[in-house]
Amino acid sequence: MTAPGVPARLENDTLLRALAREATPYTPLWLMRQAGRYLPEYNATRARAGDFLTLAKTPALATEVTLQPLDRFPLDAAILFSDILTIPDAMGLGLAFAAGEGPRFAHPLRDEAAVARLAAPDPSRELRYVLDAVREIRRALGGRVPLIGFSGSPYTLACYMVEGSGSSDWQTLKTMLYARPDLLQRILSVNAQAVTDYLNAQIEAGAQAVMIFDTWGGTLSHAGYETFSLVYTRKVIGALRKQAEGRQVPCILFTKGGGQWLEAMAASGADALGLDWTTDPRDARRRVGAGVALQGNLDPMTLMAPPAVVRAQARQVLDAFGPAPGHVFNLGHGISQFTAPDTVAELVDEVRTYSTKLRGGR
Amino acid sequence: MTAPGVPARLENDTLLRALAREATPYTPLWLMRQAGRYLPEYNATRARAGDFLTLAKTPALATEVTLQPLDRFPLDAAILFSDILTIPDAMGLGLAFAAGEGPRFAHPLRDEAAVARLAAPDPSRELRYVLDAVREIRRALGGRVPLIGFSGSPYTLACYMVEGSGSSDWQTLKTMLYARPDLLQRILSVNAQAVTDYLNAQIEAGAQAVMIFDTWGGTLSHAGYETFSLVYTRKVIGALRKQAEGRQVPCILFTKGGGQWLEAMAASGADALGLDWTTDPRDARRRVGAGVALQGNLDPMTLMAPPAVVRAQARQVLDAFGPAPGHVFNLGHGISQFTAPDTVAELVDEVRTYSTKLRGGR
Repeated sequence: MTAPGVPARLENDTLLRALAREATPYTPLWLMRQAGRYLPEYNATRARAGDFLTLAKTPALATEVTLQPLDRFPLDAAILFSDILTIPDAMGLGLAFAAGEGPRFAHPLRDEAAVARLAAPDPSRELRYVLDAVREIRRALGGRVPLIGFSGSPYTLACYMVEGSGSSDWQTLKTMLYARPDLLQRILSVNAQAVTDYLNAQIEAGAQAVMIFDTWGGTLSHAGYETFSLVYTRKVIGALRKQAEGRQVPCILFTKGGGQWLEAMAASGADALGLDWTTDPRDARRRVGAGVALQGNLDPMTLMAPPAVVRAQARQVLDAFGPAPGHVFNLGHGISQFTAPDTVAELVDEVRTYSTKLRGGR
Repeated sequence: MTAPGVPARLENDTLLRALAREATPYTPLWLMRQAGRYLPEYNATRARAGDFLTLAKTPALATEVTLQPLDRFPLDAAILFSDILTIPDAMGLGLAFAAGEGPRFAHPLRDEAAVARLAAPDPSRELRYVLDAVREIRRALGGRVPLIGFSGSPYTLACYMVEGSGSSDWQTLKTMLYARPDLLQRILSVNAQAVTDYLNAQIEAGAQAVMIFDTWGGTLSHAGYETFSLVYTRKVIGALRKQAEGRQVPCILFTKGGGQWLEAMAASGADALGLDWTTDPRDARRRVGAGVALQGNLDPMTLMAPPAVVRAQARQVLDAFGPAPGHVFNLGHGISQFTAPDTVAELVDEVRTYSTKLRGGR
């Protein structure tokens, strides 16, 4: 249930209208990983928390960092501060982050017994800290902008659950995929249920849109993407709550490296597709038609350039998506920790100013 | 000049005929990185050499390892054993391989002065060891199968030359690309000349086909791929010697992660395109037409599975490319060092047997 004391009306619903492919006076913008290490105030909160997982698991601190970028920049959405691996952590796989390294699981799934034991967690118990954060963020936002909830995709979760960590070739995971697809499919079925329950619980707690991050779907073969990722993502999307608080709750699907499969992604039931920077927005729109919104797709490394270049590149992205409704500006991947906050301010300003002109305003 | 004592006639020219889109009795096969660490005999030679660079720079040893996979498997081509970074090494950037790590340059290009000083090496002097290896390999092959020469693409070379090593986001390179494109374009121009000279020298020394590895082109934006990679690759291809020893010398272009740009790649002048495993061969053929050959595209991780699965997956790839002329079987990326040589034998056998049937033979 949404927390009491949350205003029913949004001051800025541009994101939700763009995701519904309704006309908006400008192109809404948010940034993947917008609450993160490029912000000194984030690093200060993280230092107070002690480590990343404590930060993610303490609703008051998660709320604090979720709102930090909104206090700096006129962004059109907040996104829940959390990790994509909360579900396998709640399944008991033992998530840890060593200093300077990526995520690592103490108990990756390596045998039939471990796979057989796997079960979807009850979000109201094992992931309660996430739902508490969603409620607290909604209260803190006070209706300024919508809150986006999220989860890793069933396949992307499975990558880490089997491999035990990130990988350049996912050898352990791919060995299971080719040698024992039955085991991987059991994991993916459990994950699909877990992601469904988790996103629905986030929606019940107050998430006004949800995004599925299929970060590693692009490492699959063209046939494998359908069999091992999209089948399960479709199950999730089909079972999501479509409405809450009297509004549609749109779902954004992002497969990094999935530019060749946009037609199939568009047929998944998702309301919007995230595009990475390798995809031509004109080509994407031609291929998927007008039935889904598109989100993206500036190369995050563009933000290493001087302001004039950043502004010019942002205009190119906006021109490529065009003035038709249904575009949400974003990066093609998470913002780099080495980005200067001032550069983000320039980007946000240019997107607002130029997209207003592009849509006939001034 | 080709070494004396090399037979003019090839015993097995299936690869060259497939690259020319002529009918062949079966689908020719070779494997990216086929001379490599998955072979115990390779590891023995490398141990004798002491380190990788000594192995690559000693023509007798390079010849030895180039022929090793051919002595085990009935492959349809040899590929020069070398490194993609020989050109920047010859430019004086100081290539080194630390144990267990990827390549690293002692003097990456980080300022205008270093970029201004950059010049294409004379392959007959600074890269003579490569040309000596080509000649020695041709002698050792004795006309069994054709020898493929290769180079990194101008862009892929620039990635390492600016970044100084491999990278997950190529931040230094991308910063130059967006902030000082003039500097990167100067590097790319020099690289295009260097790659042209290098590949032509390999062809003169006896390479019967050449391949351009654009390993990192897929990390560019859709617009950047044209501007920073394909423009320079086209220059190279346009200036390559097209004939040697009375035969066509075909050029294969492989951009890893470039599946969205196949139409542009097909218009580059390349005779064949390499496909990674994310691309659907049927879709690729539909998009590029009949004017180029296609090479690929089994996921290298398939080889972690039991023989029956490997054989089934190989048949799927062959079915997807179909029986029409113009397919060269390969992996979608280099073979993993953890592959069992016996599995490769199964793969090679299945491709030969099944593709013979597919093409109407038995």
